[in-house]
Amino acid sequence: MIGELKKTCDFIRKNYPEIFIILDAKRGDIGSTNEAYAVYAFDYLGVDAITLNPYLGKEALEPFLERKDKACIILCHTTNPGAEEIQDIVLKGQPLYQIIAKKVVKEWNTNNNCMMVLGARYPKQLLQARKLAGDMTFLVPGIGAQGGEVESTVKSGLNSKNAGIIINSSRRIIFASNGKDFAQKAREETLKLRDSINLFRL
Amino acid sequence: MIGELKKTCDFIRKNYPEIFIILDAKRGDIGSTNEAYAVYAFDYLGVDAITLNPYLGKEALEPFLERKDKACIILCHTTNPGAEEIQDIVLKGQPLYQIIAKKVVKEWNTNNNCMMVLGARYPKQLLQARKLAGDMTFLVPGIGAQGGEVESTVKSGLNSKNAGIIINSSRRIIFASNGKDFAQKAREETLKLRDSINLFRL
Repeated sequence: MIGELKKTCDFIRKNYPEIFIILDAKRGDIGSTNEAYAVYAFDYLGVDAITLNPYLGKEALEPFLERKDKACIILCHTTNPGAEEIQDIVLKGQPLYQIIAKKVVKEWNTNNNCMMVLGARYPKQLLQARKLAGDMTFLVPGIGAQGGEVESTVKSGLNSKNAGIIINSSRRIIFASNGKDFAQKAREETLKLRDSINLFRL
Repeated sequence: MIGELKKTCDFIRKNYPEIFIILDAKRGDIGSTNEAYAVYAFDYLGVDAITLNPYLGKEALEPFLERKDKACIILCHTTNPGAEEIQDIVLKGQPLYQIIAKKVVKEWNTNNNCMMVLGARYPKQLLQARKLAGDMTFLVPGIGAQGGEVESTVKSGLNSKNAGIIINSSRRIIFASNGKDFAQKAREETLKLRDSINLFRL
């Protein structure tokens, strides 16, 4: 019994082994369950990275964090319209997402395999997280279907090496056309976004 | 292509329709993804309830919350050893899990279909959540394999009607025996736990 997701991952790894595969699954359970999720994602599907929810703490995420050959992308500030409700609650004088960012950078990243999710809808939070995280790579969703702007995202998110952000656009690219030209239109949309990103890196 | 989880749910619903099925999936994604998760859990698997992560806020969880015929069980204070790292971060005497509890009770439960997860390892937090949540039903994992005590759990968690807690023990029951007597041993372990719970309700 082979599902579509496994088939897709197998296809990419076989034909395009240079592509970095991120499983945006936002997992976060107790340790014993996370052990099985880690095996499923990293060993069965063979992905290179997975997104993770921080609410259960570092101890619960250890089965992912201990995988030095894989990347753990922790939700810091997500891009949905209601993200602020919990993530911007101010605790100990700083918003929750900044407390999470500091923990990831200083305590969770012992294997140097952590990244963080910072949504494009919130450039101020992206900039604050960049100040706390040094050159750590960020996964930045929300460009396109979710409405983030490219310029503010790139300018707020770039690290000291003029890099360090993986901007992902999903629906605007895969649904660029519903016709037979879907592959060509998706490619065009991808190149357009790439050029738009690079414009603000000059 | 029918997976084991679907077969298990179908079996229970067909043969034991009186059993309340909880999918402990700890989901929490952006709205469009949650819409698909809600269809998968409630309509395809046909479960009665699902556990949900609060980090993305009420707006993201709406596809679950709007299902008046189903229960949404929000993670408040989980039972893993490292749960305190994030969930007990304090502002002016108010830890994050209590802020979550207040939001669920006052703002998220508009369809009267919310419950919360309070782990048995932390009876003080369970008691505090009970004070904030009125008679709301709690799902309490962590008895058994995860080490919670029955007495402190029942005494801390009961509501004004001497009820209101669903104590779940998973591994201690399903792994009560690895032999051919697994079903009988699981049944015995279940009855033992039930009697132990009821002892402290007298």
